[in-house]
Amino acid sequence: MHPLQKHIEEVIVLTDDEFSHVLSHFTPQKKRKHQYLIQEDELVNKEYWVINGCLRSYFLDESGKEHTVQFAVENWWVTDYQAFEKQVKSQVYIDCLEDCELLYITHEDREKLSQEFHKMERFWAKKTKLGYIASQNRVLSLLKNTARERYELMSAQYPNIIQRVSKKMIASYLGVSRETLSRLYS
Amino acid sequence: MHPLQKHIEEVIVLTDDEFSHVLSHFTPQKKRKHQYLIQEDELVNKEYWVINGCLRSYFLDESGKEHTVQFAVENWWVTDYQAFEKQVKSQVYIDCLEDCELLYITHEDREKLSQEFHKMERFWAKKTKLGYIASQNRVLSLLKNTARERYELMSAQYPNIIQRVSKKMIASYLGVSRETLSRLYS
Repeated sequence: MHPLQKHIEEVIVLTDDEFSHVLSHFTPQKKRKHQYLIQEDELVNKEYWVINGCLRSYFLDESGKEHTVQFAVENWWVTDYQAFEKQVKSQVYIDCLEDCELLYITHEDREKLSQEFHKMERFWAKKTKLGYIASQNRVLSLLKNTARERYELMSAQYPNIIQRVSKKMIASYLGVSRETLSRLYS
Repeated sequence: MHPLQKHIEEVIVLTDDEFSHVLSHFTPQKKRKHQYLIQEDELVNKEYWVINGCLRSYFLDESGKEHTVQFAVENWWVTDYQAFEKQVKSQVYIDCLEDCELLYITHEDREKLSQEFHKMERFWAKKTKLGYIASQNRVLSLLKNTARERYELMSAQYPNIIQRVSKKMIASYLGVSRETLSRLYS
């Protein structure tokens, strides 16, 4: 079974013909480590699904400091959702931390598939709900938890990401300094 | 036109019969100022739509300090989405800051309506996308902006909320102390 079919079938059941139709709207793309998918101030027309590899979405503040918005690994969806949904310019950079194999779908094709095919609307609705809940939990964690608690939550929730990204990036995801993070490791 | 029909029709078009069918799944509820919709550690089976009034979702940290997750006013949807979607216990309290007139739908009825009626799936999918984008922007703002910038963003984005809630609640939404907020006002 195609890995995307397996992924979609965690939410809805598709016949093989239906999946072929869905897949025909996706385009494969390979990117090498350090290449960008999206850069700040670009219009964004693609949502990406990760077959393999690891990516990071981040923004730069006025002092040039990087803040990590999210990581993405196998089976995750990634784009700048505000730019993608509202057709405004991207606030973030998304780059590849490893060589990546991706599938992308354009905004038009995602809308078309969702409109003509209730099951796919349902699939994406479910994924968006889960993304929304994760984002709300991140707001709670940023408001509530100490640096140590945030690090422990991240370790428990994303053990496979902690292994694959630099300590500098983990610090910028948690909103703590490198020095604070080093103390948490010791 | 019923205010909920007007609200739904910002996203999708319903016939009057379709709207009557949708509305039959909602129950009106009135709550007085200071009453709770949801308390921490409860199971949550209802999503609320605000006809009029103002509510606040917040959690308590271990020291008993309140952190505001979101406010909700006319035309907003509110619940603890993690508890509602995953059928786990609530992390937050939601209480009425004013007398409130609400409509609620149960999780079962929302699922049923979404399954049987593609247009309603589409409506809620769109609302969830917008909630997700707003939540992501809040993460960015908590990571990036100074207290003053966060206050200015909130004033620009939600002028009608700033007028209706206490300075203490605004401070707890922005993640700053009352004292810091007072300096921003002066």
